[in-house]
Amino acid sequence: MTMATKKIGKQTLQFERAPYVVGFAAVGGKMEGQGPLKDDFDYLSTDARFSKESWEKAESEMQYKAFTLACDKAKLPQSRVDLIFAGDLLNQCTASTFSLREIGVPFLGLYGACSTMAEGTALAAMSIDGGFADYTAAVTSSHFCAAERQFRTPLEYGVQRCPSTQWTATAAGSLILSSSQPHTTNKCIPRITHATLGRVCDTGVTDVSAMGAAMAVAAYETLYTHFEDSGFSPDSYDLILTGDLGSVGHKIVTDFFGKNGTELKNYTDCGLLLYDREKQDVHSGASGCGCSASVLCGHILRKMVNGELNTVLLAATGALMSPTSSGQHESIPGICHIVRIDNYKL
Amino acid sequence: MTMATKKIGKQTLQFERAPYVVGFAAVGGKMEGQGPLKDDFDYLSTDARFSKESWEKAESEMQYKAFTLACDKAKLPQSRVDLIFAGDLLNQCTASTFSLREIGVPFLGLYGACSTMAEGTALAAMSIDGGFADYTAAVTSSHFCAAERQFRTPLEYGVQRCPSTQWTATAAGSLILSSSQPHTTNKCIPRITHATLGRVCDTGVTDVSAMGAAMAVAAYETLYTHFEDSGFSPDSYDLILTGDLGSVGHKIVTDFFGKNGTELKNYTDCGLLLYDREKQDVHSGASGCGCSASVLCGHILRKMVNGELNTVLLAATGALMSPTSSGQHESIPGICHIVRIDNYKL
Repeated sequence: MTMATKKIGKQTLQFERAPYVVGFAAVGGKMEGQGPLKDDFDYLSTDARFSKESWEKAESEMQYKAFTLACDKAKLPQSRVDLIFAGDLLNQCTASTFSLREIGVPFLGLYGACSTMAEGTALAAMSIDGGFADYTAAVTSSHFCAAERQFRTPLEYGVQRCPSTQWTATAAGSLILSSSQPHTTNKCIPRITHATLGRVCDTGVTDVSAMGAAMAVAAYETLYTHFEDSGFSPDSYDLILTGDLGSVGHKIVTDFFGKNGTELKNYTDCGLLLYDREKQDVHSGASGCGCSASVLCGHILRKMVNGELNTVLLAATGALMSPTSSGQHESIPGICHIVRIDNYKL
Repeated sequence: MTMATKKIGKQTLQFERAPYVVGFAAVGGKMEGQGPLKDDFDYLSTDARFSKESWEKAESEMQYKAFTLACDKAKLPQSRVDLIFAGDLLNQCTASTFSLREIGVPFLGLYGACSTMAEGTALAAMSIDGGFADYTAAVTSSHFCAAERQFRTPLEYGVQRCPSTQWTATAAGSLILSSSQPHTTNKCIPRITHATLGRVCDTGVTDVSAMGAAMAVAAYETLYTHFEDSGFSPDSYDLILTGDLGSVGHKIVTDFFGKNGTELKNYTDCGLLLYDREKQDVHSGASGCGCSASVLCGHILRKMVNGELNTVLLAATGALMSPTSSGQHESIPGICHIVRIDNYKL
């Protein structure tokens, strides 16, 4: 006898009381403020240190700003949030833990690499639909300078990057979910209706300059499972959005579905939206936890509350290696978690 | 109007259909096999590499063994597990992600430092009680050699350790939760009845040799909140168990409650149980995610299924800093998550 009444198919959860997105905010740096989504950010800084002493402390500040702005926009005192799910790319996720030091809310730390926004949103929705919380938050971030020196080389080296690499976004995003329908003057309220939780996929890619390729199979697998589990057709979405595959990974996912006889019509990737690849020197596109977080919590949710987009699938992807594992000649496992966001029209 | 019907007080969750612990396993290394809990481990190895090429790969192997042994003991095919919650201390949590590469189960990655076992157990219980899963698992680990070289210095340096330091356990633990009562020949079945989710606490401790002190206030705060939220008296537990505070942190928690007029009678710390501090050179006691994980999934749950312990509070504690944050002169934030485990008598 199964008690898991909200599980459909292999890996998909269907929320009974789909949580409402009552607040969302995106924070970005200089590059993000020069890109095509600049008007969708709630806060932009041309100072890579965000007035702090280090890039790592700047990243904590970005998470703090994203969370507090999302609460402000929801007209919700921070202390009303029952649970925060947060994580980031820094060793021991210190961008999250140090920012949450300032916010006295129960905190569950995540590590999902660049899939963190979808992982956190799924868990935040599960907590509400399960009856454990009235308000939950998901927060994540990345910082180009902090990530480069931790994962690759000090910026001062000026290493030449190969065309398949992506540019780690200096960005953070946060959303606030609620168990009950908010008062709002917006046309629509986005709700989290489903989540498809991914498995670790490893196809043996070892090239740390080809993260998009390493993660693409995980994206394909979780998307395929989502469609199979839910019975929804890819055509039924206004937008299908992978996390941060960039142009290389986006092409792989498109090709894989094509070989299966499925044309993904409304499909793009957060890594292709954040920057202008013609004018900004980001090679294959954007990456980092902050990429899908800021695109979702800035550009996408803005379009949803205005009714420009009504049904969105966010499939955030993460590369689960470390410099140590790559130094030990390991391949790069990938993961992809999905949340479905549907508009509730007022 | 509140929809969070399972939340009591400020931070405590009360499960309606308290999940059953149907499988548990502990894995340890040489030191753990020489300690007082040696008979409570399901698998012990005198080889610090667990037949792998590196300590990091050994740690993945330990998690894999703990999870597969827990499934075996539950007589559950691994593929029946709906969701695994796992995390560890290695940068980017690679002990978990590489071990889960071998296990095709949906995976939600955590970073809670040494609080991971309680964080994972709480989320695994929430997933079942919320109706999202029938079987969930929580897994975590630590490895002395991998942790030392990542957090402190290469072992070859032979650095002298000061008396307040703790010894990172080379150990892993895993438990399997189920939505329905299992068939068993044991006297009792432990069930997860409550969780109290902690906030980040920072009292300004900067000494990385005094982790127990850095985490003790978080332990005190979450324990105090648990008693206040639930109305349960500390006396009503057969055992109250903090995560890995060691002798320094254990004394601080005892003192804090004492100053509040509360004598914690049945209180000890996983870090005081794992090794024989008279005979083993571990200074203030054990630490690491694997400490509370292996003590819970070996020693404690064995005593529970035999009916020797019936009501246990596990308050696992984590220090949320990184070598980078300490190098940047930051203090050490701590966190503590609690799960209450009650026996269901057959």
